[in-house]
Amino acid sequence: MTGQRVVDLNADLGESYGAWRLGDDEALLAIVTSANVACGFHAGDPLTIRRTCASAVARAVTIGAQVSYHDLAGFGRREMTVPPDELAAELLYQIAALDGVARAEGGRVGYVKPHGALYNRAARDPEQAGAVVAAVRAYDATLPVLTLPGSATARAAAEAGLPVVTEAFADRAYNDDGSLVRRGQPGAVLTDPAVVATRAIGMVTGSSVRTVSGRELNISPQSVCVHGDTPGAVTLASAIRSALERSGVTLAPFA
Amino acid sequence: MTGQRVVDLNADLGESYGAWRLGDDEALLAIVTSANVACGFHAGDPLTIRRTCASAVARAVTIGAQVSYHDLAGFGRREMTVPPDELAAELLYQIAALDGVARAEGGRVGYVKPHGALYNRAARDPEQAGAVVAAVRAYDATLPVLTLPGSATARAAAEAGLPVVTEAFADRAYNDDGSLVRRGQPGAVLTDPAVVATRAIGMVTGSSVRTVSGRELNISPQSVCVHGDTPGAVTLASAIRSALERSGVTLAPFA
Amino acid sequence: MTGQRVVDLNADLGESYGAWRLGDDEALLAIVTSANVACGFHAGDPLTIRRTCASAVARAVTIGAQVSYHDLAGFGRREMTVPPDELAAELLYQIAALDGVARAEGGRVGYVKPHGALYNRAARDPEQAGAVVAAVRAYDATLPVLTLPGSATARAAAEAGLPVVTEAFADRAYNDDGSLVRRGQPGAVLTDPAVVATRAIGMVTGSSVRTVSGRELNISPQSVCVHGDTPGAVTLASAIRSALERSGVTLAPFA
Amino acid sequence: MTGQRVVDLNADLGESYGAWRLGDDEALLAIVTSANVACGFHAGDPLTIRRTCASAVARAVTIGAQVSYHDLAGFGRREMTVPPDELAAELLYQIAALDGVARAEGGRVGYVKPHGALYNRAARDPEQAGAVVAAVRAYDATLPVLTLPGSATARAAAEAGLPVVTEAFADRAYNDDGSLVRRGQPGAVLTDPAVVATRAIGMVTGSSVRTVSGRELNISPQSVCVHGDTPGAVTLASAIRSALERSGVTLAPFA
Repeated sequence: MTGQRVVDLNADLGESYGAWRLGDDEALLAIVTSANVACGFHAGDPLTIRRTCASAVARAVTIGAQVSYHDLAGFGRREMTVPPDELAAELLYQIAALDGVARAEGGRVGYVKPHGALYNRAARDPEQAGAVVAAVRAYDATLPVLTLPGSATARAAAEAGLPVVTEAFADRAYNDDGSLVRRGQPGAVLTDPAVVATRAIGMVTGSSVRTVSGRELNISPQSVCVHGDTPGAVTLASAIRSALERSGVTLAPFA
Repeated sequence: MTGQRVVDLNADLGESYGAWRLGDDEALLAIVTSANVACGFHAGDPLTIRRTCASAVARAVTIGAQVSYHDLAGFGRREMTVPPDELAAELLYQIAALDGVARAEGGRVGYVKPHGALYNRAARDPEQAGAVVAAVRAYDATLPVLTLPGSATARAAAEAGLPVVTEAFADRAYNDDGSLVRRGQPGAVLTDPAVVATRAIGMVTGSSVRTVSGRELNISPQSVCVHGDTPGAVTLASAIRSALERSGVTLAPFA
Repeated sequence: MTGQRVVDLNADLGESYGAWRLGDDEALLAIVTSANVACGFHAGDPLTIRRTCASAVARAVTIGAQVSYHDLAGFGRREMTVPPDELAAELLYQIAALDGVARAEGGRVGYVKPHGALYNRAARDPEQAGAVVAAVRAYDATLPVLTLPGSATARAAAEAGLPVVTEAFADRAYNDDGSLVRRGQPGAVLTDPAVVATRAIGMVTGSSVRTVSGRELNISPQSVCVHGDTPGAVTLASAIRSALERSGVTLAPFA
Repeated sequence: MTGQRVVDLNADLGESYGAWRLGDDEALLAIVTSANVACGFHAGDPLTIRRTCASAVARAVTIGAQVSYHDLAGFGRREMTVPPDELAAELLYQIAALDGVARAEGGRVGYVKPHGALYNRAARDPEQAGAVVAAVRAYDATLPVLTLPGSATARAAAEAGLPVVTEAFADRAYNDDGSLVRRGQPGAVLTDPAVVATRAIGMVTGSSVRTVSGRELNISPQSVCVHGDTPGAVTLASAIRSALERSGVTLAPFA
C-alpha cells in the first residue's frame, strides 16, 4: 500500500446563531477529529462557540478557526472584495476570539480554515490569500492553514513559512486540474454513502481520485472534509469514518 | 497630603466603525495612561481595533477591554436584559478578540471595563455583574475590573477574587451616595476645564469630592475617567493631566 | 351559546434568516388566518420575507408586521431600553419595509403585532407602548394593533384611536389577573393537543379560561395565537383549528 | 447655447448611523435638489432616515432611495457577489422601508440610486443590474433609476421600461469611454472649487467634458452628483450650484 495510514477528518461546526440551530454538532463531534468552528462572522454566536469548544475539548477533537467574510445574512457564501488590510484584521479578530474562548474551555485553536466564499476566493486570488496568511502569521506563525492543494492559499502560506495542510472532499466531483466541480453542475455533489466511502478510501490509501473525465488524479490529503449541514450529513460522515477504519486507516487530528 | 501620589487616567478609544470616525484617538493616547478599547460589539471594527492597539503599544498606554452589549445601532447605550450565560459568553468573546489582536501588536489586555448601558446596569444588577465577573475569570482570573466604587460590579469582582480598580469622573456631578447625577439633569456634566481640573486634583490628592448637596464625599480613585467623544474632550483631558502633574501627582497605569 | 362564532388564528412566520431555517411556514399558512411576518430586526431576511408574503397572498392569509427590537443575536427576546423616538423610528421602518414587500407581492400589511421582548415590555411599559402606537399611527392610523387584553399597549392604542385586536393563548397557563404564567414556571406551557384544543374552544365559544388558581377568567379574544417554532407546533395549530371548526366557529382574519 | 437650461443636483445623505455622524445633511439639503437617502444597509439608522426625510420634505428636496449591499462594516464599498433573487429582495426591502418612512413624513421616494460598490458593480454586470431593475419594477415601475450613462444599469432599466436618469460627476476625471478614472489614480478627484464649478457648467450648458486624454466627450447629464462626506464637500457643492445659477441654469429635481 502506497498511501497513508493516518488521516484527519474535518467538518464545519458551531454554525448555529442565537435561536437558529444548524447541524448536529454533538453527533459530528463523535465522528470527526478536527472541528472547523465558526467564529461569529458568518455564524456562531458566542454561547454556541463556547459550548462547541467545550464539547470539542471533552472529546479531544482539535479546534480550528473557520474564519469568514463578515456576512451573517449570506452565511459567508457571498464573495466580497475586501481590502487586504481590512480583511487581515477581520480574520485576526476571529482567530483571536475563538482561541480565547477555546482556552477558557481548556482547549486552543490548532489551525485556521477559511469558510465558504472566502475559501473559494482566496484559493484563486493571491491578494486575499495573502490577507489570510497575514492574519494567521500575525496571530501565531506556527498555526497550520487547512486548504485545497494547489490553491493560492496553499502557496501563500508555504511562502510565508506557515504549515500547510491539504484536504480532499469525498462527496464532491473533481475536475482534471484538481479543482472541484461547481455546485449546481450535474454530479457535482455525491450523496450515496457507499460511493462516497469508497472514494474516501481511494483518496487516502490509494492517493488518487477519479475525475469527471475518468482520469486518475494524484492527491495525498492530510484531511478529508465531511459536510455537516446537509440532510444525511451525519450518516455520510459516519460511513466515511467506518470505511477508512475498516481499511486500516487511523483517524487522528493533524494538529 | 493625605491623598495619592499616583493615579491612572483612562478614556474610551477605538470607537470608530468602518467609515465612521469617532473621537481623536491619537490625541487622547498622548494624554491617558489606560485606553478602554472598544471590542466590536458597540463600536470598533477590527482594523480600527488593531490600529488602536498598535498606537497604544507604541505609547506604552495600557489596553483595557471595553466590553459591551451587542448593539451597534445603539452604541451600547441601550440597556439589555441578556441571560447571564449568554452575556458571559458575549463578554468572554470580546475580551478574547481584543487580547489576541493586542498580542499581535505586541501588547495585551490589562484590564476589563464594561461600556455604557452595561456599565450602569451591572453596577446595580448582581446578575449582570456576575456575568461580567464570570467572563473575566473564565479568561484570566488575574485581570482587574475597572468600575465604580460601591457598585455591584465591584462587589461581585471582589467576591470572586478579581482585582478591583475604582474610578472617578472629574467632569460629572455626584450624588451623596456616590452615584453620578444622571445625564440630562441640570449640572450633571461639567465642561469648564478649570473647574474640572480642580475637581480632579481634589479627588486624587484630597480623596474627596463635593456632592450636589454640598457634602464632602470620601473617594480614593485609582483611576480618573476622561471622556473622549465630546466636543472639547481632548482639551479637558489635557487640562486634567496638566493639573494633576502640577499638583505633584504622577500619572501611571494601574495595570 | 354566548361566545363568538368567528375568530382569527395567528402565528409567527417568516422567521428564518439566510441559511438558517425556522418553523414550517408553508404548513402553518395552511392553518392560520393571520401571519405575523418577521420584519428583519429579530429574524426575516428580505428574500424570506418576500417569499412568505407571496405564500400568504396566495393563501389569502392576512399579513401582519411582527415588529421587534433590533436584536438578531437574541431573536428579539432580550428586553431593551430604547429611547421612544428611536424605538418609534425603528418600528416605523419595519412596518414600511414589510408593507412595501407585501405590496410588491399583491398584498399589504393588515395589522401590527410586537414580537417577543417588545411585546412583553410594551404590555407593561407605557413609554414603549407609546412608541409602538406612535409608529403605527405615523404609518397608517387605520392599522389595528394585535396585543394582550388589558395591556399598556392596548390602552395606548385605544387612546390614540387605533383599532385594538386582542388575542388569547390556548397553550399557555393564565394567572388570575389575565397575565400569562411565565415560561419556565411549571405548567406554564401546555403541550397536549386535546387539552389545548378544548381550551381554545372554551376561550372562543365560552368566553372564558380557567386560571392556575381554578378561577374562570372572562376573555373574548378576537384572535387565538398558535406558536410555530416549537416541536409539534403544526400538529397543535391544526388541532386547534379543527376543534374550533367542529364547534361551529368560523376561522377568518380580523383584518 | 446647445446645452440644458435645467439640471438636478444630487448628493448622498442620511449616512449617519446611531452615535456616528457623517456629513452635514442640513447644509447639503439647502444646496441640492435631490437627496440620495441611505436605507439602512450601508448606513442610515431609522431615526436618521426619518429626520433626513422630514428635512428633505421641508425643503422640497426630492428623496431617492440610495440602496446598497448589506454591509455596515464596509459602508457598502466592498463589492459582493449576491445571487440575483437575494439581491433584488434586499433592494426591494430598502426601497420599501425608505418610501414608507418618507410617506410618514409627507414625502415619498422619487427615484432609486445604487450606492458605492453596488453602483459600480451593477454598472458593468448585467446580472446585478438586472437585480436592481427587478427590485425597482417590483416596487413601482414608474420610479426612475439614477445612474451612469452607458452603464449596464442604464441599459437594463431602459429595456425594462423604467425611466433612466443619467448623472455626471463634476469633481471626477473621465476616461475617453465615459467611465470615471478610478479613485487612487493621480488626478482622479478634483478639489479646486473654481475648476470643478467650471467643469459643471461645461457639462450642463456645453454638454461635454474634457477627458484625461484631452478629448471632448459628449454628455448630457440630467443630474450632477456632488459628494457630501469629504472635507470641503459643502463648499464644493455650493460652488457648483452658484456657478450653474450664474450661467443661467435652473436647478430643479428631475423627479
